[in-house]
Amino acid sequence: MFAPAYLDYNATAPLQERVLEAMMPWLGRRFGNASSRHEYGRAARQAVEDARARVAAAVGAQPGEVVFTSGGSEANNLFIKGCAGRCKPGVVAVGATEHPCVREPARQLGRQGWAVRELPVDAQGVLRADALSETLAFKPAIVSVMRANNETGVLQDVSGLSVAVRRYGGWLHSDGVQALGKIPVDFRQLGVDGLTISSHKVGGPAGVGALVVSRRVDLEPLVAGGGQERGIRSGTENVAGVVGFGAACQFAVERLEGEAQRLSALRDRLEHDLVALGAVVFGAGAARLPNTTFFALEHLDGETLVAKLDRMGFAVASGSACSSASPDPSRSLLAMGVEPGMARCAVRVSLGAGNSERDVGGLVQAVAQLREALKGLSALSV
Amino acid sequence: MFAPAYLDYNATAPLQERVLEAMMPWLGRRFGNASSRHEYGRAARQAVEDARARVAAAVGAQPGEVVFTSGGSEANNLFIKGCAGRCKPGVVAVGATEHPCVREPARQLGRQGWAVRELPVDAQGVLRADALSETLAFKPAIVSVMRANNETGVLQDVSGLSVAVRRYGGWLHSDGVQALGKIPVDFRQLGVDGLTISSHKVGGPAGVGALVVSRRVDLEPLVAGGGQERGIRSGTENVAGVVGFGAACQFAVERLEGEAQRLSALRDRLEHDLVALGAVVFGAGAARLPNTTFFALEHLDGETLVAKLDRMGFAVASGSACSSASPDPSRSLLAMGVEPGMARCAVRVSLGAGNSERDVGGLVQAVAQLREALKGLSALSV
Repeated sequence: MFAPAYLDYNATAPLQERVLEAMMPWLGRRFGNASSRHEYGRAARQAVEDARARVAAAVGAQPGEVVFTSGGSEANNLFIKGCAGRCKPGVVAVGATEHPCVREPARQLGRQGWAVRELPVDAQGVLRADALSETLAFKPAIVSVMRANNETGVLQDVSGLSVAVRRYGGWLHSDGVQALGKIPVDFRQLGVDGLTISSHKVGGPAGVGALVVSRRVDLEPLVAGGGQERGIRSGTENVAGVVGFGAACQFAVERLEGEAQRLSALRDRLEHDLVALGAVVFGAGAARLPNTTFFALEHLDGETLVAKLDRMGFAVASGSACSSASPDPSRSLLAMGVEPGMARCAVRVSLGAGNSERDVGGLVQAVAQLREALKGLSALSV
Repeated sequence: MFAPAYLDYNATAPLQERVLEAMMPWLGRRFGNASSRHEYGRAARQAVEDARARVAAAVGAQPGEVVFTSGGSEANNLFIKGCAGRCKPGVVAVGATEHPCVREPARQLGRQGWAVRELPVDAQGVLRADALSETLAFKPAIVSVMRANNETGVLQDVSGLSVAVRRYGGWLHSDGVQALGKIPVDFRQLGVDGLTISSHKVGGPAGVGALVVSRRVDLEPLVAGGGQERGIRSGTENVAGVVGFGAACQFAVERLEGEAQRLSALRDRLEHDLVALGAVVFGAGAARLPNTTFFALEHLDGETLVAKLDRMGFAVASGSACSSASPDPSRSLLAMGVEPGMARCAVRVSLGAGNSERDVGGLVQAVAQLREALKGLSALSV
């Protein structure tokens, strides 16, 4: 298989070898249902609880606060709809640049009598303090604000927000999927009631994630049944997946400091070179993840650039993978006030463990070449 | 690790080696997000669609009718709550011996204005025709009846039921989790609108399943977001899991005929010998799965028997794994009119690919020994 340089870690990260090693016994002879009472089942239960402790430790939570789900999308839906299922319709507030798996459940509540308020962001993608206070005056029962944006990497001050939400007694949730493994993530420090994390973004297997959730929160289950995961999330445990998630969380936290420094140096070089080519970097003025660059070169269509870079051996994205199927420009950029024409030129580079100077240098060179070639082309077509 | 004989295939089946082989590339270098546009993403998308075709073929459905989920529990919840989310509250009818992940979502609807009707079964565990017609007269909008029971293995005449439900225009769903791989399962022949299947019950990985669903059915998603799986089930695709599920479905169907014959011969021998020891076999008078025996020896507590058999090297269950945490007797048995005292003596043996005459012979011998020992004990304690 032809293996292009992979620079799309915010979409998914390769499964780490040592994570796979930890999973292998559970994909082999150790196969019990964790709810079974016999030897096979008890061993599986122990593995699930060990993994739960690892995941909890990675985010500074108690094991009893970790509810395993099938991934980040489910965890986000579970918090928002789960809280709503146990209280009277009120106000739900979500950031304007949230992932669709936060915005969509909020919209679903909107069809069930809830008032949905979108928290606007400034030109850098940061929540606007004035609009925030205005919305909090309505005392939204549920507030969901991501820690780090999947496209721009822009960070939100979730712990600051938590002070205000606690004051009137709302539930605060944060989508921490993109933050975990890239910056420190601490459940207590964030001061949230619920935190979503995902395995495949940190080098674990896909199909696993968790809602880290305070025991004070009463959640109506999305998946009801056998009563697994404290009755909040039924279904036979994905033992191998959960074990891999636990290992991936542990490794991600262990290597975080060194990796964050290494990747931010690579990222800075990348952005320096892209800006020299005339690129605009979105959210550059805000605190951001160390690995993410969302940029645009005016008049160079993002989709086209991504397709051409792919053929030249560089796997990057024109936005989040989840909306790659849609031809609309990034909602995050539109929320930041970027013109649709410019938003359509956006390309995301998200670095990770496998990337080196060589990948970044090669990518810049390829972008420069394409810029010249496509410039000539558009000059011809005029 | 001490490896007892595993006779609990209805709880979970070991991952087949050739299934793991099919998964391995996707746990290694082929790791893309199936929604990404680059080479990695396109390869992942192709793998997901190939797996979808395999799963569809295994149950006689179209690939476009297969919606991947995180497992059977989610698929059951998705059909029941997903249908309910798109229509006005009415009547929902579920079998009395359904799995909790069918009964619980129905109960949740009950708290949202729906009338929940439980379809009673006879002493063999089969839906009572008289009660069924009575309930269908209320034209339940949603009907869910399992194809095969997880504890007794008793089959329901789902295709017969479908004629009646179609007549008045209700939605019919069937939990086919225990049927797949043990008896032929055909989506068209069952005549249902939705069919739930699960990967880990047929030798695939845990954490994957599918709702096979007619395109006529409009479902409100449980997990909303990026719009994957036709917008019915968002979330990054679990590529390795789905690939394993596809392979497991294919193999399960290929080996079905031979295995069903082999296992039913083993099962018949087992039941013959257990009955000779004085056991009652539940549902013995009904059409059943070829691999399942749910039996009781009067005055021998099921939990105790299971724990002792485990120490003697035989992994069996005292009921479904999902309710193993609860000390209550099997709901299925109570619904069949079995006395609670007798129901507490129930033990489930569910055979699969790894079992031979030796396991069954050994198990019978162990049960006979325990019966003598425990009899002596209870005589002493009187």
